[in-house]
Amino acid sequence: MEQLTTSLDVLFILLGAILVLFMHAGFAFLEVGTVQHKNQVNALVKIMSDLGVSTVAYFFIGYGMAYGVFLGFNIDGQLTQAMTEKSGYELVKFFFLMTFAAAIPAIVSGGIAERARFYPVLLSTFLIVAFVYPFFEGITWNGNFGIQAWLEEQFGAGFHDFAGSIVVHSVGGWIALAAIIVLGARHNRYDKEGRIKEQHPPSSIPFLALGAWILSVGWFGFNVMSAQAIEGIQGLVAMNSLMAMVGGILAATFVGDKDPGFVHNGPLAGLVAICAGSDVVSPLGALVIGLVAGALFVKTFTWTQKTLKIDDVLGVWPLHGLCGMWGAIAVGIFGSTALGGLGGVSMMSQLIGTGLGILVAFVGGYIVYLFVHKVATLRMDEDEQYQGADLAIHRIHANPPRD
Amino acid sequence: MEQLTTSLDVLFILLGAILVLFMHAGFAFLEVGTVQHKNQVNALVKIMSDLGVSTVAYFFIGYGMAYGVFLGFNIDGQLTQAMTEKSGYELVKFFFLMTFAAAIPAIVSGGIAERARFYPVLLSTFLIVAFVYPFFEGITWNGNFGIQAWLEEQFGAGFHDFAGSIVVHSVGGWIALAAIIVLGARHNRYDKEGRIKEQHPPSSIPFLALGAWILSVGWFGFNVMSAQAIEGIQGLVAMNSLMAMVGGILAATFVGDKDPGFVHNGPLAGLVAICAGSDVVSPLGALVIGLVAGALFVKTFTWTQKTLKIDDVLGVWPLHGLCGMWGAIAVGIFGSTALGGLGGVSMMSQLIGTGLGILVAFVGGYIVYLFVHKVATLRMDEDEQYQGADLAIHRIHANPPRD
Amino acid sequence: MEQLTTSLDVLFILLGAILVLFMHAGFAFLEVGTVQHKNQVNALVKIMSDLGVSTVAYFFIGYGMAYGVFLGFNIDGQLTQAMTEKSGYELVKFFFLMTFAAAIPAIVSGGIAERARFYPVLLSTFLIVAFVYPFFEGITWNGNFGIQAWLEEQFGAGFHDFAGSIVVHSVGGWIALAAIIVLGARHNRYDKEGRIKEQHPPSSIPFLALGAWILSVGWFGFNVMSAQAIEGIQGLVAMNSLMAMVGGILAATFVGDKDPGFVHNGPLAGLVAICAGSDVVSPLGALVIGLVAGALFVKTFTWTQKTLKIDDVLGVWPLHGLCGMWGAIAVGIFGSTALGGLGGVSMMSQLIGTGLGILVAFVGGYIVYLFVHKVATLRMDEDEQYQGADLAIHRIHANPPRD
Repeated sequence: MEQLTTSLDVLFILLGAILVLFMHAGFAFLEVGTVQHKNQVNALVKIMSDLGVSTVAYFFIGYGMAYGVFLGFNIDGQLTQAMTEKSGYELVKFFFLMTFAAAIPAIVSGGIAERARFYPVLLSTFLIVAFVYPFFEGITWNGNFGIQAWLEEQFGAGFHDFAGSIVVHSVGGWIALAAIIVLGARHNRYDKEGRIKEQHPPSSIPFLALGAWILSVGWFGFNVMSAQAIEGIQGLVAMNSLMAMVGGILAATFVGDKDPGFVHNGPLAGLVAICAGSDVVSPLGALVIGLVAGALFVKTFTWTQKTLKIDDVLGVWPLHGLCGMWGAIAVGIFGSTALGGLGGVSMMSQLIGTGLGILVAFVGGYIVYLFVHKVATLRMDEDEQYQGADLAIHRIHANPPRD
Repeated sequence: MEQLTTSLDVLFILLGAILVLFMHAGFAFLEVGTVQHKNQVNALVKIMSDLGVSTVAYFFIGYGMAYGVFLGFNIDGQLTQAMTEKSGYELVKFFFLMTFAAAIPAIVSGGIAERARFYPVLLSTFLIVAFVYPFFEGITWNGNFGIQAWLEEQFGAGFHDFAGSIVVHSVGGWIALAAIIVLGARHNRYDKEGRIKEQHPPSSIPFLALGAWILSVGWFGFNVMSAQAIEGIQGLVAMNSLMAMVGGILAATFVGDKDPGFVHNGPLAGLVAICAGSDVVSPLGALVIGLVAGALFVKTFTWTQKTLKIDDVLGVWPLHGLCGMWGAIAVGIFGSTALGGLGGVSMMSQLIGTGLGILVAFVGGYIVYLFVHKVATLRMDEDEQYQGADLAIHRIHANPPRD
Repeated sequence: MEQLTTSLDVLFILLGAILVLFMHAGFAFLEVGTVQHKNQVNALVKIMSDLGVSTVAYFFIGYGMAYGVFLGFNIDGQLTQAMTEKSGYELVKFFFLMTFAAAIPAIVSGGIAERARFYPVLLSTFLIVAFVYPFFEGITWNGNFGIQAWLEEQFGAGFHDFAGSIVVHSVGGWIALAAIIVLGARHNRYDKEGRIKEQHPPSSIPFLALGAWILSVGWFGFNVMSAQAIEGIQGLVAMNSLMAMVGGILAATFVGDKDPGFVHNGPLAGLVAICAGSDVVSPLGALVIGLVAGALFVKTFTWTQKTLKIDDVLGVWPLHGLCGMWGAIAVGIFGSTALGGLGGVSMMSQLIGTGLGILVAFVGGYIVYLFVHKVATLRMDEDEQYQGADLAIHRIHANPPRD
């Protein structure tokens, strides 16, 4: 019986890991479809190679920083023990959490698309996943530095972020914002008066949609398996994820007036927002959270591009950065029993946790990308951008001339 | 132990829900690949937005109509109870069954492609999923109105439709037929003598194939998880699904003479047909069911287009409507112990259930689409059809001109 | 409790079967993206139809040859028994192992692409899956002919191939090599001096990448579920698969200098190599195994094309044939306790098992393809090759001319 439960815990978290691993294909195709045709190959290669670098960074450094278990060096025989004990549960837990960590560079990738050099991006990925991400991850999910304990003591409840609206998505979005600022807008994106000069419609709506679908489906592993043990599974988490996803779809359809880019980012906006509170809000609350997130994305996407003049190609800062913030704050609203939630949450802790996450992400991200930019030149020059990253970096088109 | 079994029931049905949710991406790409290039975006947006509307319709009305549990309004605290009791099993059950309900508009979508206006379709979707589909679903799977009890009394066995050959697929196919009749053929599809005037080959065989693959893989969740409890899992259901799928592939390959559209719809034909009897027929019976379904699709697809002059773009009436009927009838044949089945089925009940399902679907569908057509004009005008739904409705091409 | 464990065994192996079935879509898209545009449809149809033929061949003959259980003919009532006993475990076990068997023609397909006739390929597939593959499968995984027992007696441990580096991948790769030799290079591929005459860059990097992602994700079912029982699940297997995959990505990125074809075959190289030892090597060992495999693929791919003048379109012999060999040998190295492994392996048994597998594969493959070539002409003529398999065989383009 104990063996069976252990085996099932391994299976449970492994299914989550597989689903979130699949999400990385989703990130890749969302970017492929959104960027210009001449940058499709680069989008694909970046996501794949980033995954490789992220895994190594998290294996040797990041996971240990967050949870105190260093698997990469076998300190105190931790690795040897993890290999056989409890059917290797610790190892699949690493796998699952690595897929979260690796989402950070995948999020950033969409923001800095079409103008970043290849190896400098990989170096940044290593630094972010080894140091910046796990720093805040450990604070929130492992109680590091006693911040969660202090919040609980002060406000009656810690910072509640069940599946990472802040820890993963907002952190990813705000790191991306820092990277975008360091990197600057694409060549010729804005004219001298700061108006958008070159429009770049998505190159392929089908690939964009494919990415959105894969992300949406995989997200149920992201959220549900965050329970990390089979007996902790909650149908509520799945249901709320669905309702928020649907809220995002509907809001994006109506507010975004049937624009396919908006309609396919809508479910993602809802899902980003529901991560934090999927275990405490009611399905009706989740629907509202998703509706707000979908509308928020549509409105802030345009505002970012046109008013703020921030050249965030996929809109990852609005999508992950802002919708993630909304999700964490929404826990303080819809998590309360008065609004149908299960309670046990504090608005103050949500605000402090959110603020801290953003601070760590933006400052950490800014330092990393500025450092890499100084030592290795992050930005492609004008000619390379004009030619496209596919030819300039990978020496091949996405679709080489047909026979 | 009880907690573990409950948790596993939640996981089991959740895995089904995730797989069937993924099938919706399959519906989207099957349609993207089959329609003309100028209507690809519309196919994608329709499927995604329909999913949003379907969920809301089923949450607030449909699920309650079928099963008497209203989750959308918290009547008698049903929602509050569902949120915490049995690890939220009722909520994932809703999720799972919603993905079935939402398949109906996804099926219809392929039939009415390339000429339907956007918001009127969403309105029809709402009415179908809220009222028409759950009416027959409740009769078959929840014993509503005592019809199943009466059949059992009269013929020794109720109407057997394990995973929805009739409840989902035939109902979807016959609703689609009603919608196609209301809507009429695409502009210029037939000339005055009723001969096909404009051929419209699929725009993208790879996307069509991608859709077929996603549908086929997800289908194992559709069928196996229809047991709805872990201890009810049957390897036989998976095996029969495989054999029918393979039968469909082979028949479509040979009868369809290697045509890629047929070969990729073949597995779907087999899978539609095996839903009903996957738990009672033998693998050899399943193979035959699939072979017949594959051949049936190939033959009736052409017959529908050319002889009946019904402009069913993806052939959803042959695929879901007719192969579903064949599947329900095949239960009466191959479900019998004489032909290797497990028995406990009645041909009369199969025929009556099938007939009733088709009646509800066609009449219900006809009323809904006619009503929507009258109040909101379902059909795009000639200019819009010529321009394509992508530009006319969504103001963007699937692949905007390359740089 | 016993019922629950049985049900979970069925679920466990079914999840593996679903994931590996999905891999077949991966094989299809990897080939679609790699071949020329005029041969995309053929790639898709071949993989789908091959799956149909493979299932039938394995159901009626192959599975019985390997495991002594004939499900296709109900000998001694084996089929009837399998339908109800142990929740149908034997049937899902068949399903799972069939997806392995069907990988063989899917691997071969990529090697012989762009020049093979359709029905002769299907015939070859039948013979390979019915006879050649299960012959060595039974030796390794069912102890047939006492070879494993003899190895264990002689060298203290049998031939260790946990998830098929040799049984599936090397065998597939070497059968492909035989088929390629029988078939000859594509028309105009090499000039009279044996230099490459016509370069054929991949037609679609996105489809190639999609295939690689689907394969990579599905592979976790291939490896983890090879335990075949829930209580045998090992987190180590998942972790090692991840590390080898990542090693392959990194090596292919750096050694392959960011070439998208290499970067997306890199994870596959690592995963091929880790199949054999994923349950006995350490994660660090797995990382090294993946790094070597990724580099090995990049180097041998070019060597095969240019030096050996073997026209292996997707490089399936380097990928599956050679990386699989490396994986089996690596078990003898990194499986030892001295290098962090769990021990219980013998280098001699690894070498003998590897050699035997290659011998069976190459000789068996050569006989089958030569036989089919003699009786049914395996090779498309020059005109057909020039026209492309899509028009010549399937009478349709992958993307028929746009409206």
